[in-house]
Amino acid sequence: MGDPGIRDRTRGLVSAFDTANVWPSGSAPSPSSPPVTRHLISIDDLSLAEIRGLFALADQFSDDPSGFSDTCRGMISASLFYEPSTRTRLSFESAMLRLGGGVLTAAEMNASSAAKGESLADTVRVVGGGYADVIVLRHPSEGAARLAQEYSPVPVINAGDGAHEHPTQTLCDLYNLHVERGKLEGLDVVLAGDLKYSRTVHSFAYALARFGANIVCVPQPGFEMPDYVLKKLRDELNVEPVRADAARLGQLADRSDAIYLTPQKPHQLSLFTDTKGWQVESVDAVYMTRPQTERYQQDDGSIENYQTLGKQSMAAESLRDAVVMHPLPRRDEISSEIDEDPRSIYFKQDARGVPIRMALLSVLMGRMPLEGMVTEAAVPEPNSWPVGTGDNPCPNPSCVSRTEPRHVVPRFSLPSRAPMRAQCAYCSRELAFRFVGCSTTRRYHRPDSNALRQVRPDHLVFLDDEAQADSMQYIPAHH
Amino acid sequence: MGDPGIRDRTRGLVSAFDTANVWPSGSAPSPSSPPVTRHLISIDDLSLAEIRGLFALADQFSDDPSGFSDTCRGMISASLFYEPSTRTRLSFESAMLRLGGGVLTAAEMNASSAAKGESLADTVRVVGGGYADVIVLRHPSEGAARLAQEYSPVPVINAGDGAHEHPTQTLCDLYNLHVERGKLEGLDVVLAGDLKYSRTVHSFAYALARFGANIVCVPQPGFEMPDYVLKKLRDELNVEPVRADAARLGQLADRSDAIYLTPQKPHQLSLFTDTKGWQVESVDAVYMTRPQTERYQQDDGSIENYQTLGKQSMAAESLRDAVVMHPLPRRDEISSEIDEDPRSIYFKQDARGVPIRMALLSVLMGRMPLEGMVTEAAVPEPNSWPVGTGDNPCPNPSCVSRTEPRHVVPRFSLPSRAPMRAQCAYCSRELAFRFVGCSTTRRYHRPDSNALRQVRPDHLVFLDDEAQADSMQYIPAHH
Amino acid sequence: MGDPGIRDRTRGLVSAFDTANVWPSGSAPSPSSPPVTRHLISIDDLSLAEIRGLFALADQFSDDPSGFSDTCRGMISASLFYEPSTRTRLSFESAMLRLGGGVLTAAEMNASSAAKGESLADTVRVVGGGYADVIVLRHPSEGAARLAQEYSPVPVINAGDGAHEHPTQTLCDLYNLHVERGKLEGLDVVLAGDLKYSRTVHSFAYALARFGANIVCVPQPGFEMPDYVLKKLRDELNVEPVRADAARLGQLADRSDAIYLTPQKPHQLSLFTDTKGWQVESVDAVYMTRPQTERYQQDDGSIENYQTLGKQSMAAESLRDAVVMHPLPRRDEISSEIDEDPRSIYFKQDARGVPIRMALLSVLMGRMPLEGMVTEAAVPEPNSWPVGTGDNPCPNPSCVSRTEPRHVVPRFSLPSRAPMRAQCAYCSRELAFRFVGCSTTRRYHRPDSNALRQVRPDHLVFLDDEAQADSMQYIPAHH
Repeated sequence: MGDPGIRDRTRGLVSAFDTANVWPSGSAPSPSSPPVTRHLISIDDLSLAEIRGLFALADQFSDDPSGFSDTCRGMISASLFYEPSTRTRLSFESAMLRLGGGVLTAAEMNASSAAKGESLADTVRVVGGGYADVIVLRHPSEGAARLAQEYSPVPVINAGDGAHEHPTQTLCDLYNLHVERGKLEGLDVVLAGDLKYSRTVHSFAYALARFGANIVCVPQPGFEMPDYVLKKLRDELNVEPVRADAARLGQLADRSDAIYLTPQKPHQLSLFTDTKGWQVESVDAVYMTRPQTERYQQDDGSIENYQTLGKQSMAAESLRDAVVMHPLPRRDEISSEIDEDPRSIYFKQDARGVPIRMALLSVLMGRMPLEGMVTEAAVPEPNSWPVGTGDNPCPNPSCVSRTEPRHVVPRFSLPSRAPMRAQCAYCSRELAFRFVGCSTTRRYHRPDSNALRQVRPDHLVFLDDEAQADSMQYIPAHH
Repeated sequence: MGDPGIRDRTRGLVSAFDTANVWPSGSAPSPSSPPVTRHLISIDDLSLAEIRGLFALADQFSDDPSGFSDTCRGMISASLFYEPSTRTRLSFESAMLRLGGGVLTAAEMNASSAAKGESLADTVRVVGGGYADVIVLRHPSEGAARLAQEYSPVPVINAGDGAHEHPTQTLCDLYNLHVERGKLEGLDVVLAGDLKYSRTVHSFAYALARFGANIVCVPQPGFEMPDYVLKKLRDELNVEPVRADAARLGQLADRSDAIYLTPQKPHQLSLFTDTKGWQVESVDAVYMTRPQTERYQQDDGSIENYQTLGKQSMAAESLRDAVVMHPLPRRDEISSEIDEDPRSIYFKQDARGVPIRMALLSVLMGRMPLEGMVTEAAVPEPNSWPVGTGDNPCPNPSCVSRTEPRHVVPRFSLPSRAPMRAQCAYCSRELAFRFVGCSTTRRYHRPDSNALRQVRPDHLVFLDDEAQADSMQYIPAHH
Repeated sequence: MGDPGIRDRTRGLVSAFDTANVWPSGSAPSPSSPPVTRHLISIDDLSLAEIRGLFALADQFSDDPSGFSDTCRGMISASLFYEPSTRTRLSFESAMLRLGGGVLTAAEMNASSAAKGESLADTVRVVGGGYADVIVLRHPSEGAARLAQEYSPVPVINAGDGAHEHPTQTLCDLYNLHVERGKLEGLDVVLAGDLKYSRTVHSFAYALARFGANIVCVPQPGFEMPDYVLKKLRDELNVEPVRADAARLGQLADRSDAIYLTPQKPHQLSLFTDTKGWQVESVDAVYMTRPQTERYQQDDGSIENYQTLGKQSMAAESLRDAVVMHPLPRRDEISSEIDEDPRSIYFKQDARGVPIRMALLSVLMGRMPLEGMVTEAAVPEPNSWPVGTGDNPCPNPSCVSRTEPRHVVPRFSLPSRAPMRAQCAYCSRELAFRFVGCSTTRRYHRPDSNALRQVRPDHLVFLDDEAQADSMQYIPAHH
């Protein structure tokens, strides 16, 4: 199963957004020196400078909606949707049409090729091999877009892979803050509603942290931000959670305290981390989310009195200048009574998805140059490795490494080496293991062993327990 | 629920087709002074002059099929179909493509956004807010297009809302008569088949009456034109039903008498309303309809010997010059043996739906000027009002005011004030009430009371009976 | 039922691909002298010269992918898919978009018009009458495309009609051999896998025979090439099956003998038809097919150890220069371990479907001239005739003559007159009969009677047995 060979076609698997595929506007790529194909699987595939460059392009498209109708003339995008998402699909297709391109639509992939047993890898090779110049993929399996990228000859854009990533939603959310506030750094953004299951909110939080914005979590009680998100914010993005006094948020926060997540330095925080915690003063944006009822577990209980934004909650002093955002569709968590409030930008927010997707499409297809892009094409260090021995260690049943029976070689990445933590390279789920072996020395270690730092990633073997280690003829290292 | 605020964005709710949004060909609208957005929800939204103007445009498009392929270049239409109707969808999409525009297709809306609980109002705001320049809407709820119009920033075209309206079908039917006969006024048009349930035939009848054409009803027995249609023809369109002698219609009319509906003056009618009634002589068109079996009620019984147009029935002397029309799809009510008869225009009829839809699209998007259009933009008098008190009085369970739980404020219009008759402003269903109150004087009246003429529409309250009036603390007026 | 009249609009029913509808590039057809409409229903509709002309055009399109983006500007194709086939649909739509045309998509026809009871004939008349300039039809009934052609005012392309024909797949397969090998004549092509049920493989075999290529059948045991295919190859294409020694094919052939089908003259064959049969030496291409499990019958049993192409089987000496083809989707019959092998062209093969479909579309719509085309427009002899008397003699329950209740007049063709063999003109299924009558003489004959040669085809009557002949008052001829 699997064919590692094809992976070499694209440079790097997770690939910081490299650059050689972007040509000056108007100059088509020469077929003799094919550039590196860039994809957008995770928002982390883009550097901050590149995101800002995309904002600048989106601004251009917004300012002159009819001025770019030849930018992608003659090019074709393919919407491969393995589950329905009309809003997302139409937004991408509108962007492509506004650029003058053509659109192929497969809105119900499961009804056809997939039913005849074709693997995602093969579908992507075929569609990217001759039909289309860019693939927009929606798939219920987590990590599906990462897998597609490995096989596609053309750029793949992740339009949602299960509960995992939806990077263009995040890009759109960031772009809205940029348009409304002119910057991201230092903004105070309230996240409200279901912070437990909303993929959108997690990705947005990571991205806000990368840009140096501050986050105020005011969740629906029982639906707080999960520990693994807080852990990632702390461990990978240097964000410290601080207790916050949410009294001035008014009705929105039914409890007087909230969590404040800020990348600011501790000595700055000391100014306000007194007994009451940081004071929520003037908020820049409130990001509301709907209850993700389709993902609820049995032990979540039923939600009653879900948070609602209405005239009364928007009367809070601290929200006087706050824009109201929502990834849509909304249900009752934002009352229609504030639809006409100038602070309510949720419909505008969605509309701005078109120019930011135009920016992304035109850059990935090499039709527009990207400001802020690193201009030296450097092969990035690989940051994921195939699992050398044994079964697929990913515990996630919705991971594409489990749902796609063919063409997937399980891979892992290493977000931390001391103690050693490993993730599935497709769905980003943390791998569970009690020991780590080295396939050359045949010794095994505890995850916090310093010795592991010396082991090459492709020699690592993840072990459930001593019995498994024994059976595979590994011996304990000197601890 | 509901937000009246947004309604102000469009001028008037039912809006005689106002004009400020139509620019001279080639001159794009200036974003600083946005014109009034025009929609097509009911054929009544168009004046006769405007309909004639659309015919003239459609003629242009027909004469030079490839001469307008840049007319809507860079613009996008969105087909939002909440129930399937491939023929209608493809006709609109073909029209848009022939104008050089792009098309977004959502052929199965119920499978996606709607399933996540999004309201029609929000969907329309999103799609019209950034994805598309015109929305073509098909929806099973009656009045859905009227609701959509209230919220859409871009023109909405009703492509069928349940059993209510399908104005572009009517426009297409009228256009065919115009092409085949050169005029509409004074034509004699036979309507045959299921005249009870065919929405198409009712709309066509109203429109024929507006243009001064005469109608001969030759229904399938048991499926006669309903009373409410005849009433509307008489009350609102000054059409008098006259008994007619259908003997010369031959096989088509299995009974020798028919109903003749004519806008002609009584003194003209007296010429032929002798004992045998008006003589059906030379017919200009036969409009055949299929049995609308999907709408049959239990007490309709089964149809046997449904009327059929074949060689024999078309041999009738009075049909010698009649064109044969059908809104398609046909089943057996038109025999294929007359498909090659030059009088059979039903396939041409459907094909002409493309140029007439091109005319409509190009005018609504401001890309073509409309001859015959009133050039002074006048804000029309409002002709519908929100229901002030109590429950939604619309008795129609398929009305969008009942099927869309959010964003709908029930509204009514007043087709007659003496006696007072009121209709749901969405689905046009007659409201049932025995008394009408005034919310300022707190008095209530019988519907035929002259005193009601003095009451402002927005003060009217519709009451089921005295008990309800009592309970709401209304007192009887002096009758 | 049926209307023969409309048939006269297109010249000939099975129509050798006639020519008058092809204009010099850039010169649009004059509406006053409408050219004959050409269709592609079966690969046999194309002459060898025309197929070579399409290859030359496809080469042009491949060499300059962006140079033809105005070729079909302003024209529209309609994908009418009565069963899903995303790959085929996207390939056609990509081809049309690359030519600058527009695309109408009806990917789920059964859900809409068909559900309202519209016949295929009417749908095609409507879509071809005004919406689109070419129809791409996929339908589960065998012969559906042939029926559609009879009624469509615009070219119809068969994109698969049940288990019957899929001519653009065959065209694509041939084109790949042409590109990879530079010729077709004399090539040695191995056909492997399920040769019993694969429609693709049968059509490919006939086409290879027409071009003078040789075929080596190495089927999955139990799934050999059916007798009727071998019979057609022998009777109509002069191909002789010869026993072959497949020892040098290695692992692929689990038995040492295979069948070799060659159009070579007997005296040439005698060179190698010694005791061991023809030696399989250097193969030009291996064409692998998936198990067509959806078509299996009860008595087929379960397949175990289905043939597989992998590194080991591809190591056979005779396959050293063989390209590996597959119509896709593949399952496990081609191991992903050879995906990167330069001989594996199955992804390229599929990609080349786009330029060859561009060639076909542009020629059928009269936008590109076709090299090799007969330039004198000659009305071809009719080669099928309506069944004069009695019931539909086609025994195939999936034939469109049985599944479409309206607008079909059963027709037959005569692949052989001595002995007389007749086929359904729609689905090509052999008709079963024991006697043949003449409707003028009222006499009946055995199928091998020479007297039948004198009977005009439209006077032939197919009879089950003497009893039927008796009941229809036919008398036996002198045998």
